Amino acid sequence: MSDQEKEVTIYDIANKLNISAATVSRGLKDHPAINKNTKKKILAAAAEMGYRSNSFASNLRKKSSHIIGVIVPRLNSSFMSDVIAGIEKVVNEANYNLFISQSLESMKKEVSNAKAMFNNRVDGLMVSLAYDTSDIAHFESFINRGIPLVFFDRIYEHEKCPSIYINNYKAAYDITSHLIEQGCKRIAHISGNQLRNVYAERTRGYQQALKDNHVPFDDTLLIINDLSARAGNEAANQLLNLPVRPDGVFVANDICAISCMQAMKKQDIKIPDDIAFAGFNNDPTSCVIEPNLTTIDYKGYEMGETAARIMINHLVNNDDLQKTQSLILRSELIIRESSLKKGSKT
Amino acid sequence: MSDQEKEVTIYDIANKLNISAATVSRGLKDHPAINKNTKKKILAAAAEMGYRSNSFASNLRKKSSHIIGVIVPRLNSSFMSDVIAGIEKVVNEANYNLFISQSLESMKKEVSNAKAMFNNRVDGLMVSLAYDTSDIAHFESFINRGIPLVFFDRIYEHEKCPSIYINNYKAAYDITSHLIEQGCKRIAHISGNQLRNVYAERTRGYQQALKDNHVPFDDTLLIINDLSARAGNEAANQLLNLPVRPDGVFVANDICAISCMQAMKKQDIKIPDDIAFAGFNNDPTSCVIEPNLTTIDYKGYEMGETAARIMINHLVNNDDLQKTQSLILRSELIIRESSLKKGSKT
Repeated sequence: MSDQEKEVTIYDIANKLNISAATVSRGLKDHPAINKNTKKKILAAAAEMGYRSNSFASNLRKKSSHIIGVIVPRLNSSFMSDVIAGIEKVVNEANYNLFISQSLESMKKEVSNAKAMFNNRVDGLMVSLAYDTSDIAHFESFINRGIPLVFFDRIYEHEKCPSIYINNYKAAYDITSHLIEQGCKRIAHISGNQLRNVYAERTRGYQQALKDNHVPFDDTLLIINDLSARAGNEAANQLLNLPVRPDGVFVANDICAISCMQAMKKQDIKIPDDIAFAGFNNDPTSCVIEPNLTTIDYKGYEMGETAARIMINHLVNNDDLQKTQSLILRSELIIRESSLKKGSKT
Repeated sequence: MSDQEKEVTIYDIANKLNISAATVSRGLKDHPAINKNTKKKILAAAAEMGYRSNSFASNLRKKSSHIIGVIVPRLNSSFMSDVIAGIEKVVNEANYNLFISQSLESMKKEVSNAKAMFNNRVDGLMVSLAYDTSDIAHFESFINRGIPLVFFDRIYEHEKCPSIYINNYKAAYDITSHLIEQGCKRIAHISGNQLRNVYAERTRGYQQALKDNHVPFDDTLLIINDLSARAGNEAANQLLNLPVRPDGVFVANDICAISCMQAMKKQDIKIPDDIAFAGFNNDPTSCVIEPNLTTIDYKGYEMGETAARIMINHLVNNDDLQKTQSLILRSELIIRESSLKKGSKT
């Protein structure tokens, strides 16, 4: 080991300043018994010599790592990067650190991420599930050890784990009802894996709104894909090739909705006159596409802050985690030109 | 401490299975001397009892935390979330963990983030600088201790720290030359804080392209702001109120370019006929705005992967960090309708 890598100890600082190690230790902790000048000298020497406070080792003694783990499907989505930014803010202010990993939408990677988080002794874990996760056995070790586990957005209902999400059912019900009010009679719905609460609930909301408004459900109008931009492009062709085309499309995210709109515009479909469109998430792109996209606004940053606050309040103030079973955040229907059929404008 | 929180040790597993702790220890490490059935029993008991391998404590003994720290200006930008996703992939595959924090574009917060990373003994640190960072004294402690420090995108030139970035000067030179070729004679430039290499270099490329093409530089056409959507809206008004309006605008990021275009479109400016537009980053929104935005494509994901690989190769294979002083990644001019003036289409 080179000199450079040798750890500076309080004994080295004591030696250099010709004072006792106990004085150095107290000085670094800002103990009132040490006079101001001595403290100054100690801090200056510590900085100059590259002393590192022992948070790592002392956390080990305290059986606390001061680390919160986060596992998300993908880090590079507009919604998820907002969530992460909100989590980071709250966690950092509480002097905790964030371990972040992505499952890349694969249960297999999620299992291995969870194991790494467990072995690194995170104090708590926050999870939004991968596309194909079918059970949560890989999180049982956390629950068994009493390590707090909080689900957000793509949740799993478990009596010991709080969940933070929006009312996906109601949001989808509202947006579908809005399309019906605008005169749509054949509304297609594009959604994701129905294992995930967010997509299953949106599909349920869509179907219930049809039923309550006496619009028959036609299963050729229900498309389940991975909600990517590519999938939106394919869905456009599929819908335009139907014997009877839809007059409205509700897509479970904005990325897929926008690529679907772009593909239809290229085939001279007039939006909203021929086909009205609605998305979900209020991504920044939704107010750049022309016509601007009707969507559900749903604040990722707030969701991140809220989920992190529940975690931190539990860890710092010993708040009962089971007090909160579900925390349902507000979402809002944003009506824009993509769904306002001409004849229906009032 | 409740029972639930008591740490399970190899002695507990040994007791339960009525074998020696040494056998348990070897079994957990997949030692060839232990037979397959015993290994199976040990692993099953370890899982059932919630045993956590000692990576945390053993890392402390090895003086390695297996943690890479990352400090970025903001987690919720399209470009930065791509970078982070690329970093996470490489770091995770190498069995390292990521500590992630954001400076929120403030040097003050960057200083405190750096201190937390240092005290948590990250094995390496990757940084993209905040908007207003004026020196890097807060990173000297890493350099002094030989903890690898890698800058990416918004870099600081330091002989001991590799930097990964694109040739911002050349990209800006090319995009400005393209606007001139399209017939623009009064090209405005909107950029960010000139303390940051990325913005200073883009401004320098813009000015040199004007000079080389004998287009006079007019300082009323150079706007320095924070490159936010709000700033783009304000810049539009500022430019439209000039005694002689520009006929081209090159903006140092797409977010600001797009909001500036939207504000001008509302005032019936025809793009590109009245004013041509070019941005920087190739955000997804750049091919949704109408007309689609000419921009510089610059792969955040690749930048993240590359920076992380330099770090991991140094930590795992002991690659010499100073071997790479600068790694300049490819960028590409993407010409779209926003800059193709009608008369100049060929």
